[in-house]
Amino acid sequence: MKLKDYQANHFCWRTEGEVGMISLNRPERKNPLTFDSYAELRDLFRNLVYADDIKAIVINGEGGNFCSGGDVHEIIGPLTKCDMKELLEFTRMTGDLIKAMRACPQPVIAAIDGVCAGAGAAIAMAADIRLGTPLAKVAYLFTRVGLAGCDMGACAMLPRIIGQGRATELLLTGRSMTANEGERWGFFNRLCDPAEVQGEGLSVAKRLLEGPTFAHGITKTMLNQEWNMGLEQAIESEAQAQALCMQAQDFHRAYQAFANKQKPVFEGN
Amino acid sequence: MKLKDYQANHFCWRTEGEVGMISLNRPERKNPLTFDSYAELRDLFRNLVYADDIKAIVINGEGGNFCSGGDVHEIIGPLTKCDMKELLEFTRMTGDLIKAMRACPQPVIAAIDGVCAGAGAAIAMAADIRLGTPLAKVAYLFTRVGLAGCDMGACAMLPRIIGQGRATELLLTGRSMTANEGERWGFFNRLCDPAEVQGEGLSVAKRLLEGPTFAHGITKTMLNQEWNMGLEQAIESEAQAQALCMQAQDFHRAYQAFANKQKPVFEGN
Amino acid sequence: MKLKDYQANHFCWRTEGEVGMISLNRPERKNPLTFDSYAELRDLFRNLVYADDIKAIVINGEGGNFCSGGDVHEIIGPLTKCDMKELLEFTRMTGDLIKAMRACPQPVIAAIDGVCAGAGAAIAMAADIRLGTPLAKVAYLFTRVGLAGCDMGACAMLPRIIGQGRATELLLTGRSMTANEGERWGFFNRLCDPAEVQGEGLSVAKRLLEGPTFAHGITKTMLNQEWNMGLEQAIESEAQAQALCMQAQDFHRAYQAFANKQKPVFEGN
Repeated sequence: MKLKDYQANHFCWRTEGEVGMISLNRPERKNPLTFDSYAELRDLFRNLVYADDIKAIVINGEGGNFCSGGDVHEIIGPLTKCDMKELLEFTRMTGDLIKAMRACPQPVIAAIDGVCAGAGAAIAMAADIRLGTPLAKVAYLFTRVGLAGCDMGACAMLPRIIGQGRATELLLTGRSMTANEGERWGFFNRLCDPAEVQGEGLSVAKRLLEGPTFAHGITKTMLNQEWNMGLEQAIESEAQAQALCMQAQDFHRAYQAFANKQKPVFEGN
Repeated sequence: MKLKDYQANHFCWRTEGEVGMISLNRPERKNPLTFDSYAELRDLFRNLVYADDIKAIVINGEGGNFCSGGDVHEIIGPLTKCDMKELLEFTRMTGDLIKAMRACPQPVIAAIDGVCAGAGAAIAMAADIRLGTPLAKVAYLFTRVGLAGCDMGACAMLPRIIGQGRATELLLTGRSMTANEGERWGFFNRLCDPAEVQGEGLSVAKRLLEGPTFAHGITKTMLNQEWNMGLEQAIESEAQAQALCMQAQDFHRAYQAFANKQKPVFEGN
Repeated sequence: MKLKDYQANHFCWRTEGEVGMISLNRPERKNPLTFDSYAELRDLFRNLVYADDIKAIVINGEGGNFCSGGDVHEIIGPLTKCDMKELLEFTRMTGDLIKAMRACPQPVIAAIDGVCAGAGAAIAMAADIRLGTPLAKVAYLFTRVGLAGCDMGACAMLPRIIGQGRATELLLTGRSMTANEGERWGFFNRLCDPAEVQGEGLSVAKRLLEGPTFAHGITKTMLNQEWNMGLEQAIESEAQAQALCMQAQDFHRAYQAFANKQKPVFEGN
């Protein structure tokens, strides 16, 4: 499957070499999500598993904000009229987006400026690498609309990123995590200038593309797989996964390059 | 069940609105625990599952210290005379206190000043939100009485709060974690002035009570439930749990308030 | 089994009282690992389970570096000629070293100066306590030789030590973690002067030996055991494990010493 020429309807999709760039693009409302954009994002990430022309993803928002979460009028309102079956269909769809982000082999880099709230904060959490800006404000504010903090995997993933105590406070209170807290706590890998954060995301992606992309996909798979494995089982699983990578050509290319005192050129197979 | 008028025998229990305030109150000995206070705390937290008049808990200690742990004369001494069956009854009782603190839907806020040692440090760890003071000294000092660091869930919970490497050091050496370390490492959500820490704990509790308390209980339940789930299973569990919260009235109240440009008034159902 | 007089072939082994000191000693190449040194380290750590004359381990490298990982010429080259069965034998051997480091009851203290890369970084990660120096550079650089970050348990253990987001970045990019990052993120328990880091490691080990070494072993066992247990199961497991420690003599020795206002002298039984 090729995704280079994919035409997105509910966000902006463009490619820069083998990097796919997703921009949430309703800046006048701080890039809220709708039923349609959720579903299209989910389908795009699902298709990325089979796309061989895209090797990394950068996701950001237009106009100085990342994403304000589920739109109050287009999502919250209609949900108050749904029956139980329809509600579960919705929460499963949002969860399926997170599952698809984790399941695709491409590293996902989130470039986060300004508002990053609710489902937006959940999408940020599901990325592999997060770049922030001093203006980034990340809020798991589900509680402010009367809901629980357990949305799209937040009670599982946020504690592993910033620690159980800090995650509990953010999920119960819904308060914003400041950019500085986010950097200190390990949510952001680093902070960048707002004018440069998207470009930095692209740079990180391009550097990853210079590495062994097949192996990167295995790294991501194993981070997911070992989530709740025992330590001994995790070590055996890694022995198998790494033996597999040692049979890929990129490992041989690396050795040849080192033997010849050259920089290896990886091809992702 | 109502707990507003509960008369505690082995600690101080009072309520401020729907906030239950537990004060360990043997300040002349830095608030040690005894067989009786362990058992009464365990029973109180167990009853909180069924209490509908208490929506949050603040726990602190009187006289500038949180808790010095199991009393040397009233607990350690007698334990040295116990047989195996009695020892397991004791360690299970202490573990049951932690299980009850985690199982009650009310957020538990620990306000920690001064000495916070042994079982006191375990109780602090089992709280949802921890406020400290610059004078707080938290020590998992089981090793100093010849025991292992695996007490009341510490080998499971402390690594998730402050990281595996830091937790290992504290549990093996029994050394005190300073207030500053506790804040940097994510044990304390923040540090407060000693004169204000209890009041700050109450403020945090009151702010949580302005939120959707039924949903808060679900957040806490899911933080426990997802402790060792796979990532995909956690996401599906949250889809179910959040669909459930979307059927509660508080979600509808929030939407109505937003639609009317008002602040939502939650009722916890 | 006694290990005091063990003669190591592929690294330096000496003892200081009951502390076993492992020094990787090919300083001219920054202490790389070979098939032989991997196997001998694995066997030594396996034997430590049964050794009653060694109560703690300090591991370091000679000449200002910890370990540069698998030797390019002695390991990477030969691996490119292996078939699948042989590759899995190798990755399992390296994993077995990590399993053995975790399974031995002795606390393992890594004293890390200079280069700490690849398998060296994995060995550091598997230690219980890590002391660094301002010159320490820790890199999970498997990706640079075309491999995945899932090596020797890194995708399971590193996220628990420094957080999921930071670990993901290090494992995907292979970049060095600076000493300062390592301290801030909880990889290093603290930083020491390069001239003193090995001596500090020995001091930490000696202080642990003044404690209840049988109980220390149980602490380490439970940190491993509870890795992926549910919270309730972990608490019950600790109730059993601690009841067991309460039947050891060291617990009684501690109480007698406290009752007599003396410092307890532990004997590890």
